[in-house]
Amino acid sequence: MRGMPHPQYEFANGTVNSCRRFHSIPSLQRPPCGPRTNVETYEGQRSANQPREVQKRTFGSAATHIQRNPAYSELNSDDVSYFRSILGDGVVEDEDRIAVANVDWMGKYKGASQLLLLPKSTIEVSKILSYCNTRRLAVVPQGGNTGLVGGSVPVYDEVIVSLAGMDKIISFDKVNGILTCEAGCVLENLSTFVENEGFIMPLDLGAKGSCHIGGNISTNAGGLRFIRYGSLHGNVLGLEVVLADGTILDMLTTLRKDNTGYDLKHLFIGSEGSLGVVTKISVLTPAKLPSTNVAFLSCNDYTSCQKLLLAARRNLGEILSAFEFMDHHCIDLAMRHLEGVQNPLPASQYKFYVLIETTGSDEAYDKTKLESFLLRSMEDGLVADGVIAQDISQASNFWRIREGISEASVKVGAVYKYDLSIPVEKLYDIVEKMRCRLGDNAEVLGYGHLGDGNLHLNILSSKYDDNTLAQIEPFVYEWTSAQRGSISAEHGLGLMKAEKIHYSKSPEAVQLMASIKKLMDPNLILNPYKVLPQSVL
Amino acid sequence: MRGMPHPQYEFANGTVNSCRRFHSIPSLQRPPCGPRTNVETYEGQRSANQPREVQKRTFGSAATHIQRNPAYSELNSDDVSYFRSILGDGVVEDEDRIAVANVDWMGKYKGASQLLLLPKSTIEVSKILSYCNTRRLAVVPQGGNTGLVGGSVPVYDEVIVSLAGMDKIISFDKVNGILTCEAGCVLENLSTFVENEGFIMPLDLGAKGSCHIGGNISTNAGGLRFIRYGSLHGNVLGLEVVLADGTILDMLTTLRKDNTGYDLKHLFIGSEGSLGVVTKISVLTPAKLPSTNVAFLSCNDYTSCQKLLLAARRNLGEILSAFEFMDHHCIDLAMRHLEGVQNPLPASQYKFYVLIETTGSDEAYDKTKLESFLLRSMEDGLVADGVIAQDISQASNFWRIREGISEASVKVGAVYKYDLSIPVEKLYDIVEKMRCRLGDNAEVLGYGHLGDGNLHLNILSSKYDDNTLAQIEPFVYEWTSAQRGSISAEHGLGLMKAEKIHYSKSPEAVQLMASIKKLMDPNLILNPYKVLPQSVL
Repeated sequence: MRGMPHPQYEFANGTVNSCRRFHSIPSLQRPPCGPRTNVETYEGQRSANQPREVQKRTFGSAATHIQRNPAYSELNSDDVSYFRSILGDGVVEDEDRIAVANVDWMGKYKGASQLLLLPKSTIEVSKILSYCNTRRLAVVPQGGNTGLVGGSVPVYDEVIVSLAGMDKIISFDKVNGILTCEAGCVLENLSTFVENEGFIMPLDLGAKGSCHIGGNISTNAGGLRFIRYGSLHGNVLGLEVVLADGTILDMLTTLRKDNTGYDLKHLFIGSEGSLGVVTKISVLTPAKLPSTNVAFLSCNDYTSCQKLLLAARRNLGEILSAFEFMDHHCIDLAMRHLEGVQNPLPASQYKFYVLIETTGSDEAYDKTKLESFLLRSMEDGLVADGVIAQDISQASNFWRIREGISEASVKVGAVYKYDLSIPVEKLYDIVEKMRCRLGDNAEVLGYGHLGDGNLHLNILSSKYDDNTLAQIEPFVYEWTSAQRGSISAEHGLGLMKAEKIHYSKSPEAVQLMASIKKLMDPNLILNPYKVLPQSVL
Repeated sequence: MRGMPHPQYEFANGTVNSCRRFHSIPSLQRPPCGPRTNVETYEGQRSANQPREVQKRTFGSAATHIQRNPAYSELNSDDVSYFRSILGDGVVEDEDRIAVANVDWMGKYKGASQLLLLPKSTIEVSKILSYCNTRRLAVVPQGGNTGLVGGSVPVYDEVIVSLAGMDKIISFDKVNGILTCEAGCVLENLSTFVENEGFIMPLDLGAKGSCHIGGNISTNAGGLRFIRYGSLHGNVLGLEVVLADGTILDMLTTLRKDNTGYDLKHLFIGSEGSLGVVTKISVLTPAKLPSTNVAFLSCNDYTSCQKLLLAARRNLGEILSAFEFMDHHCIDLAMRHLEGVQNPLPASQYKFYVLIETTGSDEAYDKTKLESFLLRSMEDGLVADGVIAQDISQASNFWRIREGISEASVKVGAVYKYDLSIPVEKLYDIVEKMRCRLGDNAEVLGYGHLGDGNLHLNILSSKYDDNTLAQIEPFVYEWTSAQRGSISAEHGLGLMKAEKIHYSKSPEAVQLMASIKKLMDPNLILNPYKVLPQSVL
């Protein structure tokens, strides 16, 4: 339903009954601090195969402070010859193709790798890593390269090992809904495949058209279905992983339950390719339920958003499948920059907007349930105005607004992106604090997965600069840490936040992570400079 | 609802409408191989504080082949003095109390520890382990001691560290349903607590009256709600763990999402106390939904059970909360040995029985949905007969049958218990194969969590003996391994199956587990002889 290109939005006016178009309370509210900036630089999400201009930007990260580790060898022609002997045309030396793989999709992080390898099998990955480990050649594993923290591109001259050539679906168990596939499968392709079988992927995110399932697992991607189906730690049943020394670790079980020894697969879920390269996956896919309803609502204040979440959990219970919130800055931005998108609630402007999705097995019952919940929420004063999508096109438009915020953000110029887990009651405080700190220098957007306590804080400015960054960091991390929040809810640490881990993890935990890293990758060849601080390795 | 003592079952006859009591197909089916054994020895589940007679039984495990590791020190009076200096009356030397802690609830595994320690705080646990690590005193962490694989009792003279003294609820977040508590809390107490707040624990199991949440996590307990709420790897948000050297690892976050570094807590979920001692827990508790319905059904063959599961997933979708199956041997046993329990379908005898539970937010709708699903299933020939519980007492009786099988099993004399994950389509094959192998020497029961592919295979005999065991093992493991199943779906490996891990895990995986064990517990003081084979340590 989501991600359809430029849906024609048909507004639900005219023929509404009392439930379809809700009572409207005029309450024009403006941004509290300063006017919007409005500068234009295009950097949209790109497809995996679409080359883009390479830019050098290492801003907003610790990259500038990290020196190349001299323990790593430098690539030579013998190395390339060896790789050619095992991979054939899977060795890419073409400058343009390497340039694309050297830079992240935001154009924020750029490496200087001279070699891109495209293995087609686990054995080939094993041979690559075994060789690199012996030769001490550093490696960056790369999936769809849609990450937001510089985790999937080289920092210096690491060899890029792309999983894009391993994109086969291996099997699908229709009785139990268990998909087994290679790591390079694009999430959207998997979604389409399992939906044709009557199931859905347990995760969905804006980058689905480019991101790989292997990357999703390596970064423990969260996304839009988390509130319903939970974490990948609960949904991934098995993995095949190649370790730093080339050892193939076969944990590719398709069992729902298996308590035989330590459940090692969890080490690789979210470790951002620093402990091993995920090559195959088996994942539990929930049954596709026939009835989906989407509502787009406005609230007058953040407290109402919180109360609405609590009420939705209680009253929509088992059919609630998304609860996303956006402040009005997000809506303004989306209207300005996303083609063909219309505000479903144009009559007035509210401070907050909420998207609620339900998914269930009974069309009529689910719709009635959602409608009566929303009516009650309006009577209780939690919802100011709202519409329920009457068809897939309207639903698609609602989702396009929420999913398009990230894309619209990068059109402004520079965007400082933070992805925070904060107890729901304090989640919006940081947005307001940041807005007051930055004044007219930047536009501050708050949105995200309210149902999971996950805020996306985007700070838009005309260009990246040190003064703005100094206003943001370390304040944003210190404040989050003081709330016992997480400085990375779902994006990971990558290069951007490797040195910031102590804001969310204790010294003892970081020390144990480092010990495990050194145990499993003693030459530290896998995704160097990322995830963990250099000082502990 | 479950676990009520001796519910008065009121059978749903007389006033039934077409949905309440289903069409009955007479099909008296007897056990295919041999008559039932019927010997009586009481060994029921006990409460945590109820002492029991100590018996020596190490049958059915590799215990007899393992020698005491001479690297461990032997306890002396200085040690006891030290423990008394930090724990005061938390040092137990009373022979009767130590005897209880030395033996598992089945009376199958018995150790020879001379010291039971009852710390009351994380600091005390830390001091104990730090001391034991320095002194090389082996330790067995103990929760409710309800395990089924000899994981929670000493093998030789290990010091027993019981978490029973750490049973405080620390906090409950009513907005997000997040419980934080100490590891020694009894599961049933936590259930009662969160239910009063409008939530439920994400796991439920027969031993809930005795088992500790810390033990549940250390063994990655599955249980009856797994089909709906999934694994503890998905539901546990944070842990506090004391490592072998006494280091306190604070991972006690209450965030739903946190991608900052390796998610270390998963190492402790299911590692059976061999990598650290879990001291505090935060866990996500789902909202308690007001409507629960339970149906008790019969099927004429195993294929119908499978088809019924598939149909239930499709048609009950989001309200399905349990799908348990039992063969008629289980029902016969329950009727013989469980006081006050009645067969809800006494008119005839069927080969298989299925318990389906739904949980949702709308009483009338959910009931109608279940009824129409069952009617359709009868029309399709999947269900032979069935009843839906009309009140909590009937529902309780249905659950009592399913939950009481384990208790009834140990009343027969000897019970060889296996807990297997097997692809659903082959799950019952092993029961039939085993029945034919054993002939009249034993009664073979098959039951379990069909929705999770988890079979409990219980083999009842008048006494434990080598000939019977040789008929069962290694066949049961070899067969399961050949199906790429797991030799422990949810019970863990403990002492019973530590040397059998290779049936379900690759040599590379076992090697990595051993490396991690040696990294985190270099003196191997934590729960020795369990989980991993001695040969790899």
